[in-house]
Amino acid sequence: MMPDVKGLTEKIKKFRDERDWMQFHGHKEMAISLILEAAEVLEHFQWKSPQEIEEYAKIHKDEIGEEIADVGMYLFELADNLGIDLKEAMEKKLEKNAAKYPIEKAKGKHTKYNKL
Amino acid sequence: MMPDVKGLTEKIKKFRDERDWMQFHGHKEMAISLILEAAEVLEHFQWKSPQEIEEYAKIHKDEIGEEIADVGMYLFELADNLGIDLKEAMEKKLEKNAAKYPIEKAKGKHTKYNKL
Amino acid sequence: MMPDVKGLTEKIKKFRDERDWMQFHGHKEMAISLILEAAEVLEHFQWKSPQEIEEYAKIHKDEIGEEIADVGMYLFELADNLGIDLKEAMEKKLEKNAAKYPIEKAKGKHTKYNKL
Amino acid sequence: MMPDVKGLTEKIKKFRDERDWMQFHGHKEMAISLILEAAEVLEHFQWKSPQEIEEYAKIHKDEIGEEIADVGMYLFELADNLGIDLKEAMEKKLEKNAAKYPIEKAKGKHTKYNKL
Repeated sequence: MMPDVKGLTEKIKKFRDERDWMQFHGHKEMAISLILEAAEVLEHFQWKSPQEIEEYAKIHKDEIGEEIADVGMYLFELADNLGIDLKEAMEKKLEKNAAKYPIEKAKGKHTKYNKL
Repeated sequence: MMPDVKGLTEKIKKFRDERDWMQFHGHKEMAISLILEAAEVLEHFQWKSPQEIEEYAKIHKDEIGEEIADVGMYLFELADNLGIDLKEAMEKKLEKNAAKYPIEKAKGKHTKYNKL
Repeated sequence: MMPDVKGLTEKIKKFRDERDWMQFHGHKEMAISLILEAAEVLEHFQWKSPQEIEEYAKIHKDEIGEEIADVGMYLFELADNLGIDLKEAMEKKLEKNAAKYPIEKAKGKHTKYNKL
Repeated sequence: MMPDVKGLTEKIKKFRDERDWMQFHGHKEMAISLILEAAEVLEHFQWKSPQEIEEYAKIHKDEIGEEIADVGMYLFELADNLGIDLKEAMEKKLEKNAAKYPIEKAKGKHTKYNKL
């Protein structure tokens, strides 16, 4: 069975290429789309208090899920276009973060690593 | 073998919970982090022409990869916190997009679906 | 005395033209810069609780002021490049918002106008 | 005659206070709104080529103007809430930028100041 990041990326590329859309998918354009979809996700929570967000997130789960999916699709494709293995990059970053934020120092705090 | 979206998400959650960071990871805060990391990706391409981007993306691939990874980590965790199956949501959205953008109508054009 | 929106815009344009930077200031590029600077503003408040923000905003007022200024500079110039009178556009939008959010209906609520 | 940044800010604050909206206008919430409106501006130019943008910007000037106005309103109010004099901050930043980007070094180039 094909790992799902690779499998999803292949489906996304097939969809793009069937429509001859690679001409519009330069890195800058993909990065623009990524931030615009991230804005669509954030917009769901604008103005709302933590309790309102709790309730809202349950009722509108599918709607928010579509925005989450959009971010995913631009992210997976941009990574692929840049020749970046997303899974590998995420694992490497988790390791780097573990060194920047050792548990004894970072536990229970949101302080940035250079101020720990 | 655990599918990699689920596997990565488990690692991200373990990292978060070891540091007792869930208290900071409400949906709005995660969505804020998502858009800030997307901005970090886009910043790499600010001002640059298509040719400059071509070259730059090769030389700075690892650097950009870290930002791409950061977006991935916030996305995977936010989806999980919201109870959204990221893989499923992305496959559903691809189907929905296929209906919105039929190949015969959308091929070679970047027109929005409601103006096709 | 020249009104200050116009006066600031003239200084911004002089600065740009002395450096022959108009070639890089197409609308898309300016809109990208606008969102990147807005991200710089938001980043100051990432992770922080309301009380932490109160304190932080006093201590780091000048730093945040620089980011606020950057947003202002891209906004004023983009408006000018688009042939938009910023002051007039803002006054028109305030009027439009007054109609969308009549006081009796909107007071004390953050509900979007189409759900009032 | 009241300078227009101050005049517009007073109108924005009156509009907000008539509706008892200050309770929703903490710095983080305003910064979120700022970036969401900046995304609305950028969205107008998504996917479009330079020539398409030229045409589009003329036809849709009023529409884009509304988004530009929204960014302006959140910016002016956030500055005021933070106790920042927007005009002064922008003039200070222009001076700082003049030192970071001396004309002889920066003319015709989009290189970041620390790489000039």
